Amino acid sequence: MIKELKEKILKEAIVVNDSMVKVDGFLNHRLNIEILQKMGTVFYEAFKEDHIDLILTIEASGIALAIMAAQKLNVPVLFAKKGNNTLHQENIYSTIVHSATKNIDTSIYISQDYLKKDMRVLIIDDFLAKGNAVFGLMNLIEKAEAECVGVCIAIEKGFEEGGKQIRAQGIKLVSCAVIDHIENGLVILRDE
Amino acid sequence: MIKELKEKILKEAIVVNDSMVKVDGFLNHRLNIEILQKMGTVFYEAFKEDHIDLILTIEASGIALAIMAAQKLNVPVLFAKKGNNTLHQENIYSTIVHSATKNIDTSIYISQDYLKKDMRVLIIDDFLAKGNAVFGLMNLIEKAEAECVGVCIAIEKGFEEGGKQIRAQGIKLVSCAVIDHIENGLVILRDE
Repeated sequence: MIKELKEKILKEAIVVNDSMVKVDGFLNHRLNIEILQKMGTVFYEAFKEDHIDLILTIEASGIALAIMAAQKLNVPVLFAKKGNNTLHQENIYSTIVHSATKNIDTSIYISQDYLKKDMRVLIIDDFLAKGNAVFGLMNLIEKAEAECVGVCIAIEKGFEEGGKQIRAQGIKLVSCAVIDHIENGLVILRDE
Repeated sequence: MIKELKEKILKEAIVVNDSMVKVDGFLNHRLNIEILQKMGTVFYEAFKEDHIDLILTIEASGIALAIMAAQKLNVPVLFAKKGNNTLHQENIYSTIVHSATKNIDTSIYISQDYLKKDMRVLIIDDFLAKGNAVFGLMNLIEKAEAECVGVCIAIEKGFEEGGKQIRAQGIKLVSCAVIDHIENGLVILRDE
């Protein structure tokens, strides 16, 4: 758990309801460079021995975090795009991701040129709840016959199933902060 | 002009037609950290004396570039979001941006909480053609009664009007590479 991130969440996160918080002040709209750098360092330390070839994230909020880790791991970032790309349907891997926050299905895709067979891929994203985005990215990795080496998350919702499911698959998951639950409009973080 | 960027454009840019190139290999889909860092340094050198308070960009491709400059200028990044945000209509500045590439109008918005009166703002974006995205961001800055101190661009299309119009307004514009024109499927860069 990163102390500054913990403090920021407790101070600035806006509780929308019992399962949703907004952290637009430092992660999802305005980007706090110092906290992002600290998270990038945590991700780097966790995966520096794992021979990562590529970081895979999803536009838009995952990009800044991915960049921070990529600078240290010295690998490129590939960000999955949202929407239907009619220009390149023959050269993409695509899948559907359900957003619980917005309650919509979104098509995401990557170019086959940049995710190749046997690449060792690290997934980075901002939030982990039910894990829909992460499982969507894993699906793209599988289609490319590449390997998902691990998953890095800024804020995990510990009361949702995503984290458990990823760990149950034997995949290394690093979360910089875990929300245990939300109670009477307050965020309760897990100490770990 | 950054040598490595110039080489990447000449080597990897895919010419779509006489006015459009794709640089998905290092800027718009896969992100090349080294080249992004060099561009961030160019932006930093150009604006390090200008007392920047905030970098403003637009999701998704502008974020990585903005982060690179923000790390050096030691300021936060605010990225304008696309789409209609029904949650916060009372607390946003919004405007419409026409995308010539996709031939669609997109609504972009920022929270009023993060762009305040008199802030000195640096705009960063990946491409500059007709300037629609930049003028949209300037419009948001104007609505907030903040100040646009300058504009930083990775690749300017010198044959489009955006760059001329920004310079004609007396606004400092820094482009890392300028495409003079596209001829018989080849990108011709401007030497400067």
